[in-house]
Amino acid sequence: MQPVMSVAEVEAFLAREFPQIHLDGPVYRVESLEPGVAVMRFTASERHLRPGGTVSGPAMMALADLAAYVVILGHIGPVALAVTTNLNINFLRKPAPGDLIATCRLMKLGKRLAVIDCAIAGEGEAELAAHATATYSVPPERG
Amino acid sequence: MQPVMSVAEVEAFLAREFPQIHLDGPVYRVESLEPGVAVMRFTASERHLRPGGTVSGPAMMALADLAAYVVILGHIGPVALAVTTNLNINFLRKPAPGDLIATCRLMKLGKRLAVIDCAIAGEGEAELAAHATATYSVPPERG
Amino acid sequence: MQPVMSVAEVEAFLAREFPQIHLDGPVYRVESLEPGVAVMRFTASERHLRPGGTVSGPAMMALADLAAYVVILGHIGPVALAVTTNLNINFLRKPAPGDLIATCRLMKLGKRLAVIDCAIAGEGEAELAAHATATYSVPPERG
Amino acid sequence: MQPVMSVAEVEAFLAREFPQIHLDGPVYRVESLEPGVAVMRFTASERHLRPGGTVSGPAMMALADLAAYVVILGHIGPVALAVTTNLNINFLRKPAPGDLIATCRLMKLGKRLAVIDCAIAGEGEAELAAHATATYSVPPERG
Repeated sequence: MQPVMSVAEVEAFLAREFPQIHLDGPVYRVESLEPGVAVMRFTASERHLRPGGTVSGPAMMALADLAAYVVILGHIGPVALAVTTNLNINFLRKPAPGDLIATCRLMKLGKRLAVIDCAIAGEGEAELAAHATATYSVPPERG
Repeated sequence: MQPVMSVAEVEAFLAREFPQIHLDGPVYRVESLEPGVAVMRFTASERHLRPGGTVSGPAMMALADLAAYVVILGHIGPVALAVTTNLNINFLRKPAPGDLIATCRLMKLGKRLAVIDCAIAGEGEAELAAHATATYSVPPERG
Repeated sequence: MQPVMSVAEVEAFLAREFPQIHLDGPVYRVESLEPGVAVMRFTASERHLRPGGTVSGPAMMALADLAAYVVILGHIGPVALAVTTNLNINFLRKPAPGDLIATCRLMKLGKRLAVIDCAIAGEGEAELAAHATATYSVPPERG
Repeated sequence: MQPVMSVAEVEAFLAREFPQIHLDGPVYRVESLEPGVAVMRFTASERHLRPGGTVSGPAMMALADLAAYVVILGHIGPVALAVTTNLNINFLRKPAPGDLIATCRLMKLGKRLAVIDCAIAGEGEAELAAHATATYSVPPERG
């Protein structure tokens, strides 16, 4: 299960196809793309914070969804649209202030569905802030 | 299971405690609060749209999470913080352009956990765009 | 969205294709099959009970999964195999002793995926014991 | 996060408190209990199989639920009842015939909730047959 795009190619694709995600500046960056795994860094801006300075739940859901998309995109290439069909997330503990790191693994990349495991933690923290699983419908005619 | 806050009280509480949700203007409005049920209207702004003008998945997740919070808040009152512990969402079909209506029902309002069923549809549409269930941890010391 | 099989046809299909579900006798019965909705009755046997006589969580998960299958089967016909891809269940309260009733609704019956909402309650009880959503992969070549 | 029970103590507790799980013989065995992780082996009997000899979805759900319970029990001790509140499972691929191995990790063991990640694979297989996350409500008065 080898990536077919580079980090730079994925970031260029996201900027072109989903300009909205960068309306607050470069809050989402792809850190790495390895076989079966993508890592994304999230730098919260004001709108993503809750009282006390912790990242909001919806911001973590958006991060999980985007990082899951990235790991699929990086492995199937920019040929067609994958669409989220299900996302399940457990919020485990408030992250410390600072960047969040989302690590997404392909548990399955099938002909019709991709299923991703996504762990979110504060940078440098051992314990997870949230854990999500996401299912994407992937176009059968790719490749 | 009677609400203990009015729609106006809930909206005032949200505006005071979560000003970030109104950074793009009044995109979220509480339509009604009845026994066990809250209805919220969402008017997407540019940042919530995807190519083709449909509302993004993360915007629907944020809507489900907020509307679920509203139905709990309306029934336990503004005494303490409820926190999302789990959210599961199925994306069913692209909504038509226009406002989204989220209808959230309390399936359980227990001493420790509240579980909410949340249906999201385009205004006036019979078929759902998305369906979510959310669990909130609620403070035991309330009331 | 009209059913294409009768209750008797569905029950005969289940007995033929899934004889294991009847190893403990007729614990699962289809009560009704209406447009978009199936209702199944579950009579627990000893193996499905936990201390105190309440139905176990796994027995309710199996019930949700089977009843979700029934509503799909009843609407696409006995042509090919639908397979569960995701099931999410919230356990809400212990049901009273007695039969359980599972009411499953098709939220979506698409070309590739079907998504079902399934409410489980003790017979005659207004409050739910559990609520599940299930996704099935359905064969594209049907009908 | 150290276990407070041995494998033998956990198995004795299960046999005493949940005799129903052994009605078909010793299909569930605890393989190991390490800090934060429990491994359980499942030997399917006839009732757990589907046409073709693969383990049924409900059997995998029951396995995930039980193995998640085991990792909690092993870390909080046999003092009181933990109860499943949510289980989400993705079915990824049919397992090969033979035993299934469930590996459950505590993502959180809080005062009120425990959240577990559970990977299920055929013995010796690298790819998962199913992946679940489970939330248990744990008694606050323990230890």
